[in-house]
Amino acid sequence: MEPLFTSLIDSLPSTVPFVGPEALERKRGRPFRARLGANENGFGPAPSVIAAMQDHAGDVWKYADPENYDLKQALATHLGVTPGNVVVGEGIDTLLGLVVRQYVREGTPVVTSLGAYPTFNFHVAGFGGRLVTVPYRDDREDLDALLAAVKREQAPLVYFSNPDNPMGTWWEAGEIERFIDALPASTMLVLDEAYGETAPITALPPLDVSRPNVLRMRTFSKAYGLAGMRCGYAVGAEKQINAFDKIRNHFGMNKLTQIAALNALHDQNYLKAVTSRIIAARERIALIAAANGLKAIPSATNFVTIDCGRDGPYALAVLNALIDRDIFVRKPMAPVLDRCIRVSVGLDEELDTFEQQLPQALAAAEETS
Amino acid sequence: MEPLFTSLIDSLPSTVPFVGPEALERKRGRPFRARLGANENGFGPAPSVIAAMQDHAGDVWKYADPENYDLKQALATHLGVTPGNVVVGEGIDTLLGLVVRQYVREGTPVVTSLGAYPTFNFHVAGFGGRLVTVPYRDDREDLDALLAAVKREQAPLVYFSNPDNPMGTWWEAGEIERFIDALPASTMLVLDEAYGETAPITALPPLDVSRPNVLRMRTFSKAYGLAGMRCGYAVGAEKQINAFDKIRNHFGMNKLTQIAALNALHDQNYLKAVTSRIIAARERIALIAAANGLKAIPSATNFVTIDCGRDGPYALAVLNALIDRDIFVRKPMAPVLDRCIRVSVGLDEELDTFEQQLPQALAAAEETS
Repeated sequence: MEPLFTSLIDSLPSTVPFVGPEALERKRGRPFRARLGANENGFGPAPSVIAAMQDHAGDVWKYADPENYDLKQALATHLGVTPGNVVVGEGIDTLLGLVVRQYVREGTPVVTSLGAYPTFNFHVAGFGGRLVTVPYRDDREDLDALLAAVKREQAPLVYFSNPDNPMGTWWEAGEIERFIDALPASTMLVLDEAYGETAPITALPPLDVSRPNVLRMRTFSKAYGLAGMRCGYAVGAEKQINAFDKIRNHFGMNKLTQIAALNALHDQNYLKAVTSRIIAARERIALIAAANGLKAIPSATNFVTIDCGRDGPYALAVLNALIDRDIFVRKPMAPVLDRCIRVSVGLDEELDTFEQQLPQALAAAEETS
Repeated sequence: MEPLFTSLIDSLPSTVPFVGPEALERKRGRPFRARLGANENGFGPAPSVIAAMQDHAGDVWKYADPENYDLKQALATHLGVTPGNVVVGEGIDTLLGLVVRQYVREGTPVVTSLGAYPTFNFHVAGFGGRLVTVPYRDDREDLDALLAAVKREQAPLVYFSNPDNPMGTWWEAGEIERFIDALPASTMLVLDEAYGETAPITALPPLDVSRPNVLRMRTFSKAYGLAGMRCGYAVGAEKQINAFDKIRNHFGMNKLTQIAALNALHDQNYLKAVTSRIIAARERIALIAAANGLKAIPSATNFVTIDCGRDGPYALAVLNALIDRDIFVRKPMAPVLDRCIRVSVGLDEELDTFEQQLPQALAAAEETS
C-alpha cells in the first residue's frame, strides 16, 4: 500500500512536451555541431546583459524581489501600460500553466490548433481539461475555425500563437483584432507572442488592457536570447493579472534573471541588431531550402519551417538523417504539418554545416523512405 | 461579462506568503543596513560557484537540459541513491506545489503545524485542500500530535520541517524514524530538510528510498548560498519521484542554476567552511540576545529565533523597532511562537549593527507596548 495520487494525476502519463538536445547527445554519444532545433537565439544575449549577470553573480545568496517591481516598472514603461497590467513569470511555460489552472477544471473544454504548442496541451491535460483541436489551414492557425470551436464548445479558454510555432506563419494585426472582437466575452484568449519581436510590426495589435478576456504573452527567451534564464510576462486587464498572485510561486523568479531581463529591455539597440541577424539567417535558411528543391514557408519567427514536399515519414527520415549528421532540428508532428522540418536560426558556421549536410540528408532519406 | 475563474480560484485571496525586504525598502524609502530576515546565507555561494556562473553567462541562450541529467547524477552519487530517486525543481517551493497537486483535491485534509512554513499552506489552499494544524509543543513541531491528526483525519499528506522553520529547533533522527514507522502507509510525509546541512548529522535519518510514503526535500538556497538561483530537490521512491514528470515544468530550470548547483555540490570544502561560519554566527546571535536579557532558542538552522520574553504584540514592536533601525528581521506569527523574533545569520558587520541597535529597539518596544 502507498499514498494514493488523485485520480487525475494517476491517469496522466509520465510525458515530456519535448526531448531536449542534451538527451539526444547522450544517446548519440557525441555533441551536435549545429544546435538549430529549439528555437533558441544562437546569437546570444546582449554583451551588456552578459556583463550585468557576471557583475551580479555574487548577489545570488539573496532571494529575488517577489514582486518583480523593477522589471514590471520597466516593462510597463516600455509597453505603455501600468505595472498592474503585467505579471512576470519563469517563462511563458509557467504562465501558461497558471492561466490553465485559473480556468480549467476536469472536463473543461479548451480550444487550440492541432499541432500547436505541446506545452500548452501538457498543462491542459495536467489540469484535466478536454482539448478541442482545430486543424491548421494553409499552414496557418485557422482563426475562423478556432472561433467556431470556442462558440460550439462554450470554451472558457482558447490559445494560439502569433507568429505561429511550429509553422512560423502569422496573421496581420487586423485579423487578430477581428478575432478578438468576435470572441465571446466569457472566453479568455491566450495570445502567445513569444516571437513578437521578430515579426513585422504590422502583426502585433496595439495592447488594449481594457479587455478582460485577452492575455498577451511575451518572453525574453527568443529575440532577447535568454531562453536558459526563464523569463516571460503576460499583459492584460488588472483583475486578470492580479489573479496570478493567488497561485503563482511568489519567490520563483531567479535573481540573475530579473537583472538580465531588465538589462536586456534597456538595450534596445542590441535587440534591433540581433533581429536583423535573425532575419538574415531566416533568409539564408530559405535559400538553402530552395537550393535543395524544398520550399521554405515564410516565417515571422526565429526559425524557418521547411516543406520537404512529401509525407510525414519522409520528413521524419530527413530529420533523422540531419540528426545523424550532428545537426539538431525538430519537426511538426501533426498530420499535414508533419511534411515539414523546422530549422532555427543560428550562427553562420552552424548554417554552413546545415547547408553542407542537407543534400546528403535528403539523399539518405530518399533511400530509407 | 468576463471569463469566469474556477470557483476555487475565485475563492482565493490575492496573497503573498511573505513580503520581500525589497518591498519594505521601497516603503521605507531607504535600504536596510542588515539583511537578516529571509534565512538567506549572507556569506554567499562558493567563489568556485560564482566563477562558474560568470564563465557560463554567455551560454544562457540555450534552454537548460530538461532532464537535469548531470545534476541528478551528481546528487545521486552524493546521496548514495540512484538518479531515479531524485527530482530537481525550481526551489523546494515549486516541489511543494507539485506534491500538493499530486495528492490534494478540494476538501482533502492536509496536516501541518500551526505556524509552520506559510508557502506550504499557500499551495494547499491553492489546490483547495483543508489545512489541519497542530500546535507546536515546547517550540518544536509536535510529532505525536501530527501523527494523531493524520490518523484522525485519514490525511493523505503531512508536512513538517526538520530542522524547523521558524523556530530553528530539531528532532534527532531516531524520533523522525519513529514517526515514519508509525505513519499510515497511505499517508505521504513531506520532510522538509532545507536546513539539513546546518543541522547536527544526528538529526538526519539515513535516506531510505524503499519507502513509498516519504519525500525528503533539500535545497541549494540555504547552506549553499544560492537562494536567488532557485534549486531544490526531492528524494524518494522511484514511482513517487516519476510522478513529478507528469506535471512539472520540464523546461523550468535555469541553465545557470544547473551549473551553479553542480559546482556547489562539488565544492564540499566550501560548504564545510561556510557551515562553520553559520554556526559561529548563530552563537554570536545567541550571545547578543543573552546580553539583552533575551533567550535564544537553540538552533540547527541558519537563523536564531529569539524569545522576547513577553507576548506577541511586544515581539512585533521589537521587530518594527529593528526595521525602523534598518535591520530586516522576521518573526513567527502563530500564537505562543509569536513572542519571538527570527534573526538570520549574516556578516560580522551586519551582526555588529544588530548588536548596536537591539538595546534601542527593545527600549522603543517597551515604550510602545
